[in-house]
Amino acid sequence: MSECVRLIPLGGFGEIGKNMLLLECQEQLLLIDAGIAFPDDDTPPGIDLLIPDYSYLRENAERLLAIVLTHGHEDHIGGLPYVLRDVRAPVYGTPLTLGLVRAKLGRHRLDDVDLHSIAAGDRLTIGPFDLEFFRVTHSIPDCLGLGIHTPVGSIVHSGDFKFDHTPIDGRRTDFSTLVRLGDDGVRLLISDSTNIERQGHTPSEMVVGKSFDEIFQRAPGRVLVATFASQIHRIQQVFDVAARHGRRVLVSGRSMERNVSVAAELGYLQIPEGLRLTHGELAELSDAAVVILVTGSQGEPVAGLSRLARGKHPRLRLREDDTVVLSATPIPGNEATVWRLINDLLRWGAQVVDHRAEVVHVSGHASREEIALLFNLIRPEFGVPFHGEYRHMVTYGDLAQAVGLPHHNIFLLQNGDVLRLDRDGARLDGTVAHGVWHVDGGRISELGAADSVLQDRGFLSESGVVAAAVSYDFAAGGALAPPVVKARGVRGVDEALCEQAAAELAARLAELPAPERHDRVEVERAGKRCVRAFFERAVRIYPVLQFLLLDPTAPWPEAAGEAQSEPAG
Amino acid sequence: MSECVRLIPLGGFGEIGKNMLLLECQEQLLLIDAGIAFPDDDTPPGIDLLIPDYSYLRENAERLLAIVLTHGHEDHIGGLPYVLRDVRAPVYGTPLTLGLVRAKLGRHRLDDVDLHSIAAGDRLTIGPFDLEFFRVTHSIPDCLGLGIHTPVGSIVHSGDFKFDHTPIDGRRTDFSTLVRLGDDGVRLLISDSTNIERQGHTPSEMVVGKSFDEIFQRAPGRVLVATFASQIHRIQQVFDVAARHGRRVLVSGRSMERNVSVAAELGYLQIPEGLRLTHGELAELSDAAVVILVTGSQGEPVAGLSRLARGKHPRLRLREDDTVVLSATPIPGNEATVWRLINDLLRWGAQVVDHRAEVVHVSGHASREEIALLFNLIRPEFGVPFHGEYRHMVTYGDLAQAVGLPHHNIFLLQNGDVLRLDRDGARLDGTVAHGVWHVDGGRISELGAADSVLQDRGFLSESGVVAAAVSYDFAAGGALAPPVVKARGVRGVDEALCEQAAAELAARLAELPAPERHDRVEVERAGKRCVRAFFERAVRIYPVLQFLLLDPTAPWPEAAGEAQSEPAG
Repeated sequence: MSECVRLIPLGGFGEIGKNMLLLECQEQLLLIDAGIAFPDDDTPPGIDLLIPDYSYLRENAERLLAIVLTHGHEDHIGGLPYVLRDVRAPVYGTPLTLGLVRAKLGRHRLDDVDLHSIAAGDRLTIGPFDLEFFRVTHSIPDCLGLGIHTPVGSIVHSGDFKFDHTPIDGRRTDFSTLVRLGDDGVRLLISDSTNIERQGHTPSEMVVGKSFDEIFQRAPGRVLVATFASQIHRIQQVFDVAARHGRRVLVSGRSMERNVSVAAELGYLQIPEGLRLTHGELAELSDAAVVILVTGSQGEPVAGLSRLARGKHPRLRLREDDTVVLSATPIPGNEATVWRLINDLLRWGAQVVDHRAEVVHVSGHASREEIALLFNLIRPEFGVPFHGEYRHMVTYGDLAQAVGLPHHNIFLLQNGDVLRLDRDGARLDGTVAHGVWHVDGGRISELGAADSVLQDRGFLSESGVVAAAVSYDFAAGGALAPPVVKARGVRGVDEALCEQAAAELAARLAELPAPERHDRVEVERAGKRCVRAFFERAVRIYPVLQFLLLDPTAPWPEAAGEAQSEPAG
Repeated sequence: MSECVRLIPLGGFGEIGKNMLLLECQEQLLLIDAGIAFPDDDTPPGIDLLIPDYSYLRENAERLLAIVLTHGHEDHIGGLPYVLRDVRAPVYGTPLTLGLVRAKLGRHRLDDVDLHSIAAGDRLTIGPFDLEFFRVTHSIPDCLGLGIHTPVGSIVHSGDFKFDHTPIDGRRTDFSTLVRLGDDGVRLLISDSTNIERQGHTPSEMVVGKSFDEIFQRAPGRVLVATFASQIHRIQQVFDVAARHGRRVLVSGRSMERNVSVAAELGYLQIPEGLRLTHGELAELSDAAVVILVTGSQGEPVAGLSRLARGKHPRLRLREDDTVVLSATPIPGNEATVWRLINDLLRWGAQVVDHRAEVVHVSGHASREEIALLFNLIRPEFGVPFHGEYRHMVTYGDLAQAVGLPHHNIFLLQNGDVLRLDRDGARLDGTVAHGVWHVDGGRISELGAADSVLQDRGFLSESGVVAAAVSYDFAAGGALAPPVVKARGVRGVDEALCEQAAAELAARLAELPAPERHDRVEVERAGKRCVRAFFERAVRIYPVLQFLLLDPTAPWPEAAGEAQSEPAG
């Protein structure tokens, strides 16, 4: 077999489960990012998170050299605490990314992970992979793209990016490195396709500050700004604009406080002395001197803004002269929730400013012209879109053709597809296990949608559950005690109806002829049928039925055997 | 008490539950529309429909004179089968509206409802209400607005409307009547605020036909058009454009077939002889001679288009040269589902045409300038927005002020608010019961969100259920048979674990000291604790627990008493 690199996407390629990409060369593995996704409408109840099926990685755990993180968003680092239970390898990331990772691993009591700080401009050789890191701009500071030099040529991975020419921290995308990489020849470009459907160029983060300026100026009372806690540059602008307008800033909510602290400590956030406000100081200031930073721009029910909208915030109440700035756009799937949030905010009489009226949010992902520019800087032989739904990848393919890539050099990979790159070219080379795992109470469920437990919960949530218990003497052929029936979550059923059901069950069992009345299978079948028919007739509902048949002649369980032999009473 | 009219919105005023409006005058009631809404993310599982709390109507059933329907959409007629179980009154609507109502009542076996056909231009006196009906354009044919002359002046109700100056059926909004009503003086205007946030004028339905023309022309193979089955004008355009391009039309799916039949029979749809295609004829035609009309433009899981996208359609398969036209925009809350649908359609290699690229859908609701025009035609004394979320009503209020209504003459009513209109003016006059009822398996649950059944289902769906049964002799103080434990929907629990739980329960009960072992409450408490602790320890999950304690000395239920006294076996 000739030398090759195999690209193995596990998540983030046209499917939910989020970003996780393996590179394989000379039997060695490199993992780029380990993301999670949050449940959507299609996720069964009780599921906390979605994570890509990484069984291929786990089965080849001993071949993993390192984990490289491009940036600190949940869809790139959120899966680490789970992956690191199954595989161990050094983790590389920029200081802010590692700061967020450290907090996360701490909460999962993973204290012995080998974390290595890297920076844009660094070069690092890991096995057959010669890596160089270049700066890209995105909606969180300290993001990296990767140049990956391999025995079969160079690969460029854009990371999540936009070309912000006027970033808040002045750290621009590293065009020199991109051009040098392109000049030296790039075999394969893997790039962010999320915003391919937007024409033109994504606006700079700076424009949001201009909107803030106008809003903070005209607001008659307090200004509440809701944004993601990871949006450090946005938060910096809130502080800067507040200072200009003689306002002080209250940072509200645990995740907002934590991120502001981490970012300030690491120097990613500059807060002038005395600008931050405590809850205690709030009452001393006039409303026009106050800005409040909160989370909950997506209508997340436990976040600060949702609590405020519902009047359930423990420390703050909305007022009629408040101005609420929703500095975000609804994530697809969240639209209805965000509209409800806005309706609730308006009911307090507050002014609500959102993306429809003013530029209070810009995306962190490149639009069509920026993606085209990246192509023309890199001029790769092959193109692979990542990060986006299938529709985005299809449009990316059209764009790649428009900028000159032959149709057959564009690969719309899906999770689990293996792309083999060698000196002769690139081609699909089978698939590995793929899909979405559910995280349920801190544990991974690998069964996903075919899972019978989740199916059961689905049935339970549709119509509720009935339990019926009978103690039965099979030798004598009769019930030993009045049956008991209980229901939970069944519409129209109360205790009296359960008693009726129990009475019918008793009557039905008493009617059973011989030899059925001595047969366990027949007794159980007749009992179940009777209870099901009762509830169908009484309330036209088919609840999940648990039928418990107790048999005094059955063997007592081991542990209890001895205890039982003691005299009773 | 001086003469007055009371306006009592039960649904459709800034809250879900959909359109239902009561007018009260001289102790008599008139109901305008009786709509339902479909469940959203916030609706507990197992709920089929949402309907406004109409207890005020039910409590005053004998005072209801009539039900007037403005048009045949579900959010205006869907609640009729439920309301008509509790109140009886003649129902008035246009022929198409009544055609759809008749089919609906038939499915609910309500055959003895008094239905009266009315038409635009008709005038009708019902008690103190002198009604005149005027034509408005919307996204279903045969829609009405209402002029309501009362002892305290005239009220105009716009119905759902847009000003389509080139409607497909040539039946324009009746501007003469609107102007005459305005000239004669209107006290109160109730009007559709749904699209107030869109600038300008909603495009005419006709523009969709132009897009169809281009799409049908260039499509290399079959064209599939997905739209609402009630969009009769859209369907007419599909037939018309298909005929122009030498294509024949297959009407696929039950609701589409039903509506096409009802509309064709009543003359609302003109289908030239030989244009309709059967499934049998499909194979005989070349792909370029075929159009297929399907439902499912919102990604509804059981609709034709979703089945096609998933490869689960019983009679049709997607092909690479198919062109799929999504002739709709996602309803708020459906966005993510529609994107998934588009991704799945693209995976078949089909071309997908949706609202982002071409004008394949227009709204049925008036935009800002049309709402302003209606104000200027009617020049009412008071304004009330309906149909829309609270944010729309707030914006409507701003517009009403801009066109000259004093701030205090605009009422942003919420469901249940009573607006009293008399010769002196209008003012809020208390509230009636309001809220949202859930329809669950064909029956109304009036408890809504506070419902313990739904709470239980929530718990069940989060973590599953465990049933534990013990047959116990309280006199002797011991279990009479080995306990049985069963689980459903509990992560990580199998039969063996349930047996362990039963063993622990047996051991725990056997350990119970006297006098607790003779006390029913103590036995139950110890048993429950033991089972809960077991599952908490074993799988860190807290399932719903049903503990069934059987007591042979308990009285046998009545019905079964006799049967039980027979000798057993």
